[in-house]
Amino acid sequence: MTVTRSEYPESIDDRLPTEETDRTIASDKVEGTPVYDSDGERIGKIQSVMIDKYTGKVVYAVMSFGGFIGLGERYHPLPWAVLRYDEKLEGYIVGIKKEALESGPSFARDEPPVFDRAYGMGVYSYYGIVP
Amino acid sequence: MTVTRSEYPESIDDRLPTEETDRTIASDKVEGTPVYDSDGERIGKIQSVMIDKYTGKVVYAVMSFGGFIGLGERYHPLPWAVLRYDEKLEGYIVGIKKEALESGPSFARDEPPVFDRAYGMGVYSYYGIVP
Repeated sequence: MTVTRSEYPESIDDRLPTEETDRTIASDKVEGTPVYDSDGERIGKIQSVMIDKYTGKVVYAVMSFGGFIGLGERYHPLPWAVLRYDEKLEGYIVGIKKEALESGPSFARDEPPVFDRAYGMGVYSYYGIVP
Repeated sequence: MTVTRSEYPESIDDRLPTEETDRTIASDKVEGTPVYDSDGERIGKIQSVMIDKYTGKVVYAVMSFGGFIGLGERYHPLPWAVLRYDEKLEGYIVGIKKEALESGPSFARDEPPVFDRAYGMGVYSYYGIVP
């Protein structure tokens, strides 16, 4: 199954910001930021971002559903490119239906997968993103 | 003034890990990780990483010196590429003398700069990194 994206930012392949504005955000500000689906419904929040140790690229943003941490909660790695920050909502919009997000690749808190290339290919292809 | 790096990882320009091992690390694991200088002295810790909102690249790791948070503490943005993770130390080594790190670009907690291109060029050139 793949999902339909309504909108996502274009990739701009520069290491440094190209514009004369503040394009950066601190990781500890990203963590906890709410996530909204394509219908504008608040569905979860960003738990952390997964960074490639060697290239320094954010490979995934990890979303948790719901407002409570507990047994059975699952984490959903999303390609960074599916997140679009909305100034008014002060949160990220993913242009994807809630149901498709719920069915996406996920893992339990105490059973993280090995985030190797094969795993990454699965996540990126689920969301229709070319790595 | 520029600094001398003794070692830093090569840039590998793939979005996904190329190896069949877990090359990723979660942002909330990076935060708080100790930083050692080129003499192996523990000099500070990672406060957060600054991510380019659009490309998803880590532009800086922000280091704080010392163990206490307080008035007068300054944050030092470092290019991700100057950090090398050391498994034995369970921390990052920057191949730079403590004095050179102390003299590097920094900002006060309550007076963050605009992280625009000009600022980034200054930081990267201080550490001798080509963006």
